Amino acid sequence: MTEQLLYLSQKDVADTGLTMDRIIETVEKGFNEMGNGRVEMPPKPGVHPGEGDNFIHAMPAYIPAMNSAGVKWVSGYPGNPAKGIPYINGLLIYNDPATGLPLSVMDCSWITAMRTAAASAVSAKYLARPESSTIGILACGVQGHTNLEAMNVLFPLKKVFAFDTIAEQAEELAAYGRNTLGLDVEIVTDPRKAVTGCDIVVTSGPILKVPHATIKKDWVDEGAFVSCVDFDSFFSRNALAQADKWTTDNLDQYNHYKDHVGFFIDCPPVYAELGELVTGAKKGRENDTERTFAANLGLAMEDMAVAPLIFDLAKDKNLGTWLPL
Amino acid sequence: MTEQLLYLSQKDVADTGLTMDRIIETVEKGFNEMGNGRVEMPPKPGVHPGEGDNFIHAMPAYIPAMNSAGVKWVSGYPGNPAKGIPYINGLLIYNDPATGLPLSVMDCSWITAMRTAAASAVSAKYLARPESSTIGILACGVQGHTNLEAMNVLFPLKKVFAFDTIAEQAEELAAYGRNTLGLDVEIVTDPRKAVTGCDIVVTSGPILKVPHATIKKDWVDEGAFVSCVDFDSFFSRNALAQADKWTTDNLDQYNHYKDHVGFFIDCPPVYAELGELVTGAKKGRENDTERTFAANLGLAMEDMAVAPLIFDLAKDKNLGTWLPL
Repeated sequence: MTEQLLYLSQKDVADTGLTMDRIIETVEKGFNEMGNGRVEMPPKPGVHPGEGDNFIHAMPAYIPAMNSAGVKWVSGYPGNPAKGIPYINGLLIYNDPATGLPLSVMDCSWITAMRTAAASAVSAKYLARPESSTIGILACGVQGHTNLEAMNVLFPLKKVFAFDTIAEQAEELAAYGRNTLGLDVEIVTDPRKAVTGCDIVVTSGPILKVPHATIKKDWVDEGAFVSCVDFDSFFSRNALAQADKWTTDNLDQYNHYKDHVGFFIDCPPVYAELGELVTGAKKGRENDTERTFAANLGLAMEDMAVAPLIFDLAKDKNLGTWLPL
Repeated sequence: MTEQLLYLSQKDVADTGLTMDRIIETVEKGFNEMGNGRVEMPPKPGVHPGEGDNFIHAMPAYIPAMNSAGVKWVSGYPGNPAKGIPYINGLLIYNDPATGLPLSVMDCSWITAMRTAAASAVSAKYLARPESSTIGILACGVQGHTNLEAMNVLFPLKKVFAFDTIAEQAEELAAYGRNTLGLDVEIVTDPRKAVTGCDIVVTSGPILKVPHATIKKDWVDEGAFVSCVDFDSFFSRNALAQADKWTTDNLDQYNHYKDHVGFFIDCPPVYAELGELVTGAKKGRENDTERTFAANLGLAMEDMAVAPLIFDLAKDKNLGTWLPL
């Protein structure tokens, strides 16, 4: 067999230079396909080696309009960082839908970090006030960085309030926001200061089944949008009850997490899936006082929407390693 | 990150020289783990690009006793052979259960061909008469070859009856049986001659929802064992009704295929899972007149049992390509 596949390491993937604005655009297109029922995305099963919350999940998807099929096989090991290994690792296999042959195997860490933030931004496009200029980031790790980057693409951001229990993380995000994005970043040690007064709030800490519930009633301003990247971990029951529109990226998956895994116990009923907002089947923000929320779970569709862009850029730039099948 | 993974092409995997006897032994150990409830193997979801019966399935498994976790992402495209591309293609990702990091990406075609036959042989070990010396192979493609190889490891085979609707396929199997395995192979054009008079029968044609039902009542001898690699495709309802023990490799998956996909409609109730035969929880063959059947579906556990052997041999022999994560 003379067929080949292209292997792309984490560095190769990043070196493609794929920009956040293109990722947001592509992820939004993917949600439009989903909203129109044109994406095949079965449930994501996984295995759980070892003790605790370790997981490795298989995330398959097929998007006909993007000629993309494949799977992301992604692990999350909470104990890894203590060993000097990232929490999230994994590979994405991108297949030719016409033959089923693998076209590429690529690292999925960079893609996961970027597309998760892009989905936040797509939610914000429909749920945040367009003039939003003040953003609070609570927990300033990888998702804190990429969510700030993504929101900065779509909104005229000026001021950032950065909160983290680890001072170095907040410092890093502040340096990134100031030097790379040219924003005014203020590090705050009171989490309320990264919520109240903000047009957009991103919570991006560890995902917990029992929320630490740092954010209380009335902290979120009227008219604000919140992207709960870490599910409901940051929110008290009373704060959640103030949500006027509580949305998610995929209702089936949300209900699975709620009914079988034990997340989202205190959350309001889901108003809309993101695909419904993108297609216009349901309205996004309808006035300047609604408190709107997105609790996106991360979908295989997003990965498989981004994979062809990475593949094409890598070929153009002669990145990666060609391997025989 | 200085971590690396080892990529193994189809040729690299075959060049490891892993032998069928070791694969059978390993697959049996895997079924012992399964029978003792020590394997994590969620349902296998997939996508279905294009028209017809195309599929790409994700098959994850974790076997603690073998320190193996991973996923097989395998496609089956019925239209591929007409394009000069194999029906089955795909990759297996083998992970370190301790960190979740990928250790290896390897072609899965060879492994799939071998482990499927090995599972047939493990079923035969518990369900066929130990002195079985005459075997019928109906449909002489890849699985015809590997099933003959696997049965020849465990049984004192002498005579093979080879049936195929494509003469060249039967000729190829005959040449393999004679030249490589030293067996007496007779090509037959009447399918009954590859069933009646045989101690072991392997049906390994295309898998069909509506069985072609070539094999009729009384064709299968008393005391014979049948491995239905192609599910029940070869069997009429009346022939199936003569099964004294109808077994499968995994009841959950079997019931899913039966209740939701439409296979096995006319089949008898399942007597045992293969893991129950291996652990002794249920008895295999109990006398010389039972007609016993295995309809194994193919499990991710089998792939993940074999993967570490391939990985270790490949490292020993300096096969494959090391790649940065």
